[in-house]
Amino acid sequence: MRLKGSCLFAQSGGPTSVINASAYGVIKAALDAPEIQNVYAAANGIRGVFNGKIYDITKEDRSELALLPGTPSSAFGSCRHKMKDLDADSSEYIKLVELFKRYDIRYFFYNGGNDSMDTCNKLSHFFTQNNYECRIMGVPKTIDNDLCGTDHSPGYGSSAKYIANSIAEICLDNDVYDTPSIAIIETMGRHAGWLAGAAGLATLSDAAPDLIYFPEIRFDMDKFFNDVSAIYNQKKKCLIVVSEGIRYTNGMFVADAPISINDGFQHAQLGGVAVKLAQALRSNICNKVRPIELSLLQRCGSHIASKTDMDEAFAVGMYAVERALEGETGKMVIIQRESVNGAYAAKFGLEQLSVAANAEKKIPREWINTEGNFIKQEFIDYALPLIQGEFERNVDKGLPRFAKLKKILA
Amino acid sequence: MRLKGSCLFAQSGGPTSVINASAYGVIKAALDAPEIQNVYAAANGIRGVFNGKIYDITKEDRSELALLPGTPSSAFGSCRHKMKDLDADSSEYIKLVELFKRYDIRYFFYNGGNDSMDTCNKLSHFFTQNNYECRIMGVPKTIDNDLCGTDHSPGYGSSAKYIANSIAEICLDNDVYDTPSIAIIETMGRHAGWLAGAAGLATLSDAAPDLIYFPEIRFDMDKFFNDVSAIYNQKKKCLIVVSEGIRYTNGMFVADAPISINDGFQHAQLGGVAVKLAQALRSNICNKVRPIELSLLQRCGSHIASKTDMDEAFAVGMYAVERALEGETGKMVIIQRESVNGAYAAKFGLEQLSVAANAEKKIPREWINTEGNFIKQEFIDYALPLIQGEFERNVDKGLPRFAKLKKILA
Repeated sequence: MRLKGSCLFAQSGGPTSVINASAYGVIKAALDAPEIQNVYAAANGIRGVFNGKIYDITKEDRSELALLPGTPSSAFGSCRHKMKDLDADSSEYIKLVELFKRYDIRYFFYNGGNDSMDTCNKLSHFFTQNNYECRIMGVPKTIDNDLCGTDHSPGYGSSAKYIANSIAEICLDNDVYDTPSIAIIETMGRHAGWLAGAAGLATLSDAAPDLIYFPEIRFDMDKFFNDVSAIYNQKKKCLIVVSEGIRYTNGMFVADAPISINDGFQHAQLGGVAVKLAQALRSNICNKVRPIELSLLQRCGSHIASKTDMDEAFAVGMYAVERALEGETGKMVIIQRESVNGAYAAKFGLEQLSVAANAEKKIPREWINTEGNFIKQEFIDYALPLIQGEFERNVDKGLPRFAKLKKILA
Repeated sequence: MRLKGSCLFAQSGGPTSVINASAYGVIKAALDAPEIQNVYAAANGIRGVFNGKIYDITKEDRSELALLPGTPSSAFGSCRHKMKDLDADSSEYIKLVELFKRYDIRYFFYNGGNDSMDTCNKLSHFFTQNNYECRIMGVPKTIDNDLCGTDHSPGYGSSAKYIANSIAEICLDNDVYDTPSIAIIETMGRHAGWLAGAAGLATLSDAAPDLIYFPEIRFDMDKFFNDVSAIYNQKKKCLIVVSEGIRYTNGMFVADAPISINDGFQHAQLGGVAVKLAQALRSNICNKVRPIELSLLQRCGSHIASKTDMDEAFAVGMYAVERALEGETGKMVIIQRESVNGAYAAKFGLEQLSVAANAEKKIPREWINTEGNFIKQEFIDYALPLIQGEFERNVDKGLPRFAKLKKILA
């Protein structure tokens, strides 16, 4: 059961506001585990493993590591890399096992989304086949919240909080003049509408968008014009939220398709879907339309992180190490939702990597209204507990005090 | 000295995160003043006066009014309206004095920028000429910080805080992958670079932009390419901040000018200056360039308001009423910077409206580096005290609890 050796941690895919809380969870548990000799982190995810760029975490100051939760973006760097199947190309696997042997790595924790779970899954099978004993654990993260097998993913709650709060504020700003105007706000979420839906939480501030469009519902431009007109004709204002991932019935992303506007030309456009739809609305409904892209801040705005999310992100990291020490391997940590005396609580568990590796969790259709343009109470009941609590970041002179790591190569 | 009558308050121009703290300062002081019989607020600034849309503030709940400071955007609505000279068109003045007489308005507080100070100035002269006794006070606000006569303007500190903190976070996010990339972030500030300069405060988080471009320094595309290349060639990353108001030597806004890119065409572009410069950089330096417009959130992101700014915004409102009750009229409230035992402190005073009415305060040239592409320590010393302190907003279930006003017409 007890396996002595070193531990490697790496981060993958798009960052979140709380991803380094998971890093700190893994690192803290690993540094405190007597079985684990050295703790390493790979630079830029699995790519650091391939090119031998490995940081020695035991050389970092514990007080700086403790600042990781309030430090957004992947502290050790990230990558977007999907490993080839072993049958197709074994070169990466061979490089990897060489490095693992050189550093006696017997625990590997990979913090990422579904591609990272796929990587963990492939490595787990490869090591088993090659009789290299190494416990592999996937640590979930994604602002998109599209990982299967877990109630929700660390990172989502903070992005949802950023979006709901920012949109409540924008909603007031959009009403400031008594002149007709429309604002259209674009959220991330290429395949699932969890982030766009979070805008609907602003309903609780009485400052919510009028319409929300999801990747789960096929987009129809005529219906869109009708939806907007109905609101705009009544109050001469309209606040619209769109996911970057909305698609036409033919499957094409609205962001990628040409848009017909009323001078008869098809314009190729720069920018995302909000810019594009704003142009279409200007030609058809109102000439003052402001597109707003929430851009990177929705995934790095740790100044408004959810404490619930931060605590869970840390806990999944700790839990991954604890269970690996107990002998578990080839699994992903999951969050299970519990109700304790009617209040939300999280419990942690493990799931097969394959469940998350090649799937995307969508919003259930019945959590979106019949019209397909707003969330229902079921969505609020699901998402609201995840944005609770104000994370107290470390502030020095009104500015964030981020972790300063030495990043000494092993 | 004592003047009995009613009081009218109105908000003008672009909102700020703390503009309603000034509203609350005026309203609280006015409600508590025995000389003041009724307290009114005009809907949508001076336009509400012209069209007789006046809210009775005495009918509001005091507990809701107390939530005004944490409520961004102008709570009573705003307008962009410059009054014509009396000689050119007296119709607005006549309408206005009729309404003032009808409601016995003897105190008028106008919260805005230089156009609002111009309005106050014109009204003040008109009332004096027409022997209508009414004390008029300008209450400053602008995120742009370009009002003359005051050390700084309420609203700037919170926007500066939003910008500096957000850019520190974006800076970490921009480094997440080890692939070449550039981000270019656009701030507001049409005529002065105070907001763009605030990005430089992120230096204190060790997560600052590489380059900042100001309206104060004429923009030169070749120099811009050289600046960016020097940084990009070294680290394959570059983080750039640009003010929306940068101009070429001929005075044309970069945002309005066509940009030549290397396929030989001049493309008319949508979007602001960041989108435009991103396109130019893609053609010349790096094909992965992300433009980010901070958009409305920099003026309504009250979730990260500066406590110093919030307290000062409230205090200028209170001070305006106090001094008007003492007999002052035709003035603007100003903030004077003091040093108390080496620490920043604000003192309030009055200035002639004409000082602010038709001028714009720029960043002193010597606060910008010789190259014209970053701030110097003098700027940090000026701006840093203004972003201090975390304002505790009223939060309910992870979302802002804004003031709910009844807005009952008088």
